Parts: sequence; structure tokens; C-alpha cells
Amino acid sequence: MVTKAHPPVLRELVQRLTKLPGIGEKSATRMAMFLLKAPDDYVHGLAENLERLKREIRTCPVCFHFTDGSLCGLCADPSRKTGELCVVETSADLLAIEESGAYRGRYHVLQGALAPLDGIGPNDLRIPELLKRLEQEKIREVILATNPTGDGEATANYLAKLLEKRPVRVSRIASGIPMGGDVKYADKVTLERALQGRRHVQ
Amino acid sequence: MVTKAHPPVLRELVQRLTKLPGIGEKSATRMAMFLLKAPDDYVHGLAENLERLKREIRTCPVCFHFTDGSLCGLCADPSRKTGELCVVETSADLLAIEESGAYRGRYHVLQGALAPLDGIGPNDLRIPELLKRLEQEKIREVILATNPTGDGEATANYLAKLLEKRPVRVSRIASGIPMGGDVKYADKVTLERALQGRRHVQ
Repeated sequence: MVTKAHPPVLRELVQRLTKLPGIGEKSATRMAMFLLKAPDDYVHGLAENLERLKREIRTCPVCFHFTDGSLCGLCADPSRKTGELCVVETSADLLAIEESGAYRGRYHVLQGALAPLDGIGPNDLRIPELLKRLEQEKIREVILATNPTGDGEATANYLAKLLEKRPVRVSRIASGIPMGGDVKYADKVTLERALQGRRHVQ
Repeated sequence: MVTKAHPPVLRELVQRLTKLPGIGEKSATRMAMFLLKAPDDYVHGLAENLERLKREIRTCPVCFHFTDGSLCGLCADPSRKTGELCVVETSADLLAIEESGAYRGRYHVLQGALAPLDGIGPNDLRIPELLKRLEQEKIREVILATNPTGDGEATANYLAKLLEKRPVRVSRIASGIPMGGDVKYADKVTLERALQGRRHVQ
């Protein structure tokens, strides 16, 4: 509860911070207290970042990741391998893969997953653009890195089917027990996938 | 790790958000993604709140809570009981008590606790101002609501001693098992306090 003890600007700030993902009122109040004491430079810089975010960030016309130029940093990077596309649902997924350092090719951000119940069909995603890229960029392999959830799996299956007849290798990222995880705590579906995806070691 | 896949403004935003209390890089990235998609109004409003926070918020000259006017909302409120002061370490503590609705008197924010090892002595806190208020406002009761931590307890003890000879009742908020808590999980010191502070019920 934001009370009369909060001056209006602080009340507004706490209310707005509460809308951020994962932030409840306690955390929002804690952040506001921190911001009250934080150096002017920092708070001013944060405010400026927010304004610039909306003004400068747009979508890359090639891969649909976000960018502040015409092409995104990844599409514009000549050191990235061509001929290989990693298809993800969102820019957040792309960033997670980038942070792992495990992939050096190009990406394609679908900007969502198929969700027929929510009325999201193939034409609501960047699938037509994906098909165009396959030819234009002479893609040899498409890695389906949508999430292993209901919608993500459905999207991967749909794309696999769609690309079946094209001269392109289609692969799906592995599902299984996460590294550091514990077999006895894994859910049934994950265990099933881990077993199905077993690999010879000798 | 913030990578080349982040445009500079986004990289800066994530780095600044990571400085907020309780926010790691994953949460900061999640917030940034949310802000990218959030309505312009919301992001602009948040930026404006941040700028105004630094411009408008100052310290109440009476109780040292923060305010956007000359007196804070609580000191300016004629419906608050006079003659009673609740002494807290910080404005955040004041807000928590206000939210409980359990107190209708006036406050005094010390702006910290005694911490000799960090070089924080009585004159670094708003203790001289507290003594002045006792006379000016004809205070009958001082409730010591500093935290039940090492520094908070020391501060409460120091103030109790300081006020010993004055014609004012001094009380300390109770420590014990929190409501909804569990005796078997309470730590030793809390249990000791809960027993010491036991009250007759019949």
C-alpha cells in the first residue's frame, strides 16, 4: 500500500516500478529508496536510457532482433558464419544463446510462437521472412531453438514440416536434464526426452 | 554478460538496472525486454519520475522523512497525534509502520543507526534534533523503533540512556516470533526475546 507518507512523485515511481516483471511493492519501495540516495548522475543516466530506448531501438529488418541502427549488431558482423540460421522465439532467447558463446552463426527471431488458442498463426510470426532468407542467404542449416514448451514445440514441428521439402538441414536443440540437474528431480517429460535423445559414448 | 548483441543504449540500461538492489543481470535483462515492449507513456512517465525524484524530493526539516514540500505529509497532517514520537532509523522503516496502520502519532527519522566501527556516532544521526523536539513539541512518549539488530539495539540503548533523566516515557517495540512464524524455526536470540517479553493473558 502506498500511503500519504509518500510524496506524489515517489508514489508514482513506486506504482510504475511495480509494473516491472518480478517486482512487487516491497521491491519497488526498496528501489525507490535506493534511487533517492543514489548519485544524481546515475538516476539521470537511467532516465535518459529509458527515453533513448523508445526513441532509438527498432527491429532489424533481416533477423528481427532489435537494433539501434539499420542492421543489428549480429547481422552487420562479418565474422558471423553465414549459411546457418538459429531460429528463436524472442530477442531474449537470442541474448541467452549469445551469452553462452556456443553459437557463431546468424539468427532469426520469430517474435513469438504459434498459439492457435490466442489466435497467433504462422503469418503473425516472422515465418514468411524466414522462408525468404533461406533462398536469399543460401542457408544450409536451420537450427530450431524455440522453447521446449507446448507452443514452442508446436512451432518447431510446424517449421520442420514446412522446410521438409527444401534443400536445407533442419535440426532441433536437445532437451534433457539440465547440466548440474538431478535425475531424481527431473519431470517425466524431461526424462523421456533425455532418454530419447541419448547418445553413444563409446 | 552483456554482449555485442545488445545495442549500446540497451547495454547501458541493463548495466544501470543491475545496480538496483536485488536486481541481477537476468532480472535487469528481463526488465529491459519488458521496457522495450511497454507503452511509450509508461516508459516516458518512469523516466520523468526519476528526473523529478532528484529535483523535488528533500528532507523534512522537522522529522527528517522525505518530502516534496517544506514539511512532510505526516508533519503537516493536523490529524496526527502530537506528544508521541516514533523514532526509526530510516524513511523505509517509517513507511513500513505507516502501511501497518498501527501508529497515528508523529515520527523522527534518525537517518541511520549508531555504528562506531563505521565511524557513525550520535552527531552523525538526527539525535540533537530529536532532543530539541522533545521540548519544543512537549513530547510525552518516545517509542524506540530502531531495528532489532546490533546497531539498532545499540542506538535504542543509547537513546534510552540519554532520555533517562527527562520527563518522557521511553518504550521499545517488541521483539519476538513474527506472526505466522514458527517457534521451531525461530533463532535463539528471537526465542529469548519472545520469552523475556511474555505477557499475562489471564
